Amino acid sequence: MADFKLLHDLLAPNSSKIVLLVMDGVGGLPRELNGPTELEFANTPNLDRLAVEGNLGLATPVRAGIAPGSGPGHLALFGYDSVEYQIGRGVLESLGINFDLKPTDVAARGNFCTVDAEGSIIDRRAGRIPTSKCVELVNKLRPITLPGVELFVEPVQDYRFCLVLRGEGLNGEIEDTDPQRKAPPLPARAKTAAAQHTADLVNQWIAQAREILKNESPANALTLRGFAIDPALPKFPDVYKLRSACVAVYPMYKGVSKLVGMDIVQFEGGKPEDEFKAVADNWDKYDFFFIHIKYTDSRGEDGDFEAKAKVIEGVDAALPQLLALKPDVLIVTGDHSTPAVMKSHSWHPLPVLLWAPGMTRRDKCKAFGETEAIKGALGHFPSTDLMQFALAYSKRLQKFGA
Amino acid sequence: MADFKLLHDLLAPNSSKIVLLVMDGVGGLPRELNGPTELEFANTPNLDRLAVEGNLGLATPVRAGIAPGSGPGHLALFGYDSVEYQIGRGVLESLGINFDLKPTDVAARGNFCTVDAEGSIIDRRAGRIPTSKCVELVNKLRPITLPGVELFVEPVQDYRFCLVLRGEGLNGEIEDTDPQRKAPPLPARAKTAAAQHTADLVNQWIAQAREILKNESPANALTLRGFAIDPALPKFPDVYKLRSACVAVYPMYKGVSKLVGMDIVQFEGGKPEDEFKAVADNWDKYDFFFIHIKYTDSRGEDGDFEAKAKVIEGVDAALPQLLALKPDVLIVTGDHSTPAVMKSHSWHPLPVLLWAPGMTRRDKCKAFGETEAIKGALGHFPSTDLMQFALAYSKRLQKFGA
Repeated sequence: MADFKLLHDLLAPNSSKIVLLVMDGVGGLPRELNGPTELEFANTPNLDRLAVEGNLGLATPVRAGIAPGSGPGHLALFGYDSVEYQIGRGVLESLGINFDLKPTDVAARGNFCTVDAEGSIIDRRAGRIPTSKCVELVNKLRPITLPGVELFVEPVQDYRFCLVLRGEGLNGEIEDTDPQRKAPPLPARAKTAAAQHTADLVNQWIAQAREILKNESPANALTLRGFAIDPALPKFPDVYKLRSACVAVYPMYKGVSKLVGMDIVQFEGGKPEDEFKAVADNWDKYDFFFIHIKYTDSRGEDGDFEAKAKVIEGVDAALPQLLALKPDVLIVTGDHSTPAVMKSHSWHPLPVLLWAPGMTRRDKCKAFGETEAIKGALGHFPSTDLMQFALAYSKRLQKFGA
Repeated sequence: MADFKLLHDLLAPNSSKIVLLVMDGVGGLPRELNGPTELEFANTPNLDRLAVEGNLGLATPVRAGIAPGSGPGHLALFGYDSVEYQIGRGVLESLGINFDLKPTDVAARGNFCTVDAEGSIIDRRAGRIPTSKCVELVNKLRPITLPGVELFVEPVQDYRFCLVLRGEGLNGEIEDTDPQRKAPPLPARAKTAAAQHTADLVNQWIAQAREILKNESPANALTLRGFAIDPALPKFPDVYKLRSACVAVYPMYKGVSKLVGMDIVQFEGGKPEDEFKAVADNWDKYDFFFIHIKYTDSRGEDGDFEAKAKVIEGVDAALPQLLALKPDVLIVTGDHSTPAVMKSHSWHPLPVLLWAPGMTRRDKCKAFGETEAIKGALGHFPSTDLMQFALAYSKRLQKFGA
């Protein structure tokens, strides 16, 4: 991971601008033997030109063969070893909806679900109820009270909500209640003795919530998962001495950015053009911009190879807008691979494009893609090295030692 | 870094000869988009032949994105993690002039400088006074005495000198006195309470020295930096079981070699031919030769792309002299990159050429250069792995495990 201590001694901030453009799940696989990946299939003249001018490489987010979730994938890009620094999903989700999480709060991600007459889960997402319904149900759960703790129930999106417990001595070491099969929701089980009190409180809350929901349809039950406390990460703007902004549409990515201390930029719309405009509107206020593109991952998860390529083409088409800002360092990559043929996150390394005029060597890469990246000047490296490269190529690091 | 413990168990010395030829700062950058680096621009028929016969690779000296100084760059080549083993400049400089530094001595690098009537530094190098003047000034400072310590003032080169304190309970945790701007020299400030006594002594010495220098011109003041004690590194000839020689012209490189326990070869002249002759003259006495070429770095620091290429051509032209000795393993690389376009050390990885007749696989490299090295059989690796390669390719390591 990034060597925060070493960087602390070497950092010499300047007026350079760094842009990290993350196409979620951009890494892919061919549809047919030795065919192109989604990125290689996509028509991307702008990215290809940057690949010729800059350098490519391949980055491993966590460890060889490990497919990361969104949290670890992004932490790695930000320079944190995601095995050392683990974040529960509850924390990510609650931060993503701008919930003002305190360092000692325990947060869980909730799903409304549908259970049958025996109480067994028959739809883990309650028919993907709309957010309006989610808000209505959350409002019904808010009156629940428990002794000694403050409770917050917050809608997220569709069937998803957050539960936050605030009080003394709470502990997030609690198992998920989703049985992941046709069975009744599990009770909240403490993983450690220290979490027993919190687990008891959660179970009391679940009992009351089930009573309130039992006559609803289709969302007549719920599951909770990702119980967690803020892991108190070293803060990105401090460790890199960068005024740092997150430009993202989806809550989870705002969440992880907030957790590392980035400012979250508010803007209208959700297209790449809208995100790039948000960067332009805030160009003078920040040194570092993390831009998150969600739909590459979504289309990969859908298994739609061509739709994923289309999303990449959309980003490429909007790219001149970003280049017009003249960043000193532009890095384009993903947080993990989501090959359409797998319909899931995968462990395959990420193609990385690093563009920094005048600072990169010649390599033989002719386009931005996984195959070309094999011969890139950056070689294979851990994603957690990326921020050190960003700082170096923006000349923000002094020489180490005499 | 090199695994000294593992090597200790596996080392089986033989009569092979290993040569490590270091062109300081050899790594470069193109002058124009996708153009050649200095090394690629240079006409190097001998190195190119060795590249075809041997293997190339790319080495990172410290960490991703970190530009090392000469000390860390060389320690890395010698197999030491330069973040774990840090050496102060005072120690390097004093060893470089063959000063017999004791393990408890505190050494600092000194610069004669010019101050104005207000005492502010107006020339940090006192007009680069010649070494003869430096010697004259040092002789004036030698009579200074302080209670309880022995003092040594030694000329280095031009405006540079060393100050060494010898006595009980000295500590090198002291800040540099160079303010790095137009301001009076700073007092020597202790970084830790344990260094307060030493800092007090240094300040007493500075007061007396200032009094002696005040009417000199242009060198009417001084600064001190890189206060340090011998870090007591594991010794290179012991950890690798190699009778080891350093063939270098500049003090700093002799210093770091002496610090790791190499013998320093005395010889006349400063050209590659002179250095290679020194190797030939000592061929039977040693198993390992570290040869240091300084001017690649100097011309890089000057920003003179073509002059740096010329230095490389000079080394290449002299190379047959070295090859005539029939080394078993010849490694050619640098300690760090010094791209002429940056006029400074950089973090870009080093091209490495490893030539060991009969021991290397085929790769597709046609010449010695950074772009070719991307596809080299050695791949990307930390510089600290290099000595393990040297030992392996010279058949000095037994099989690990049954």
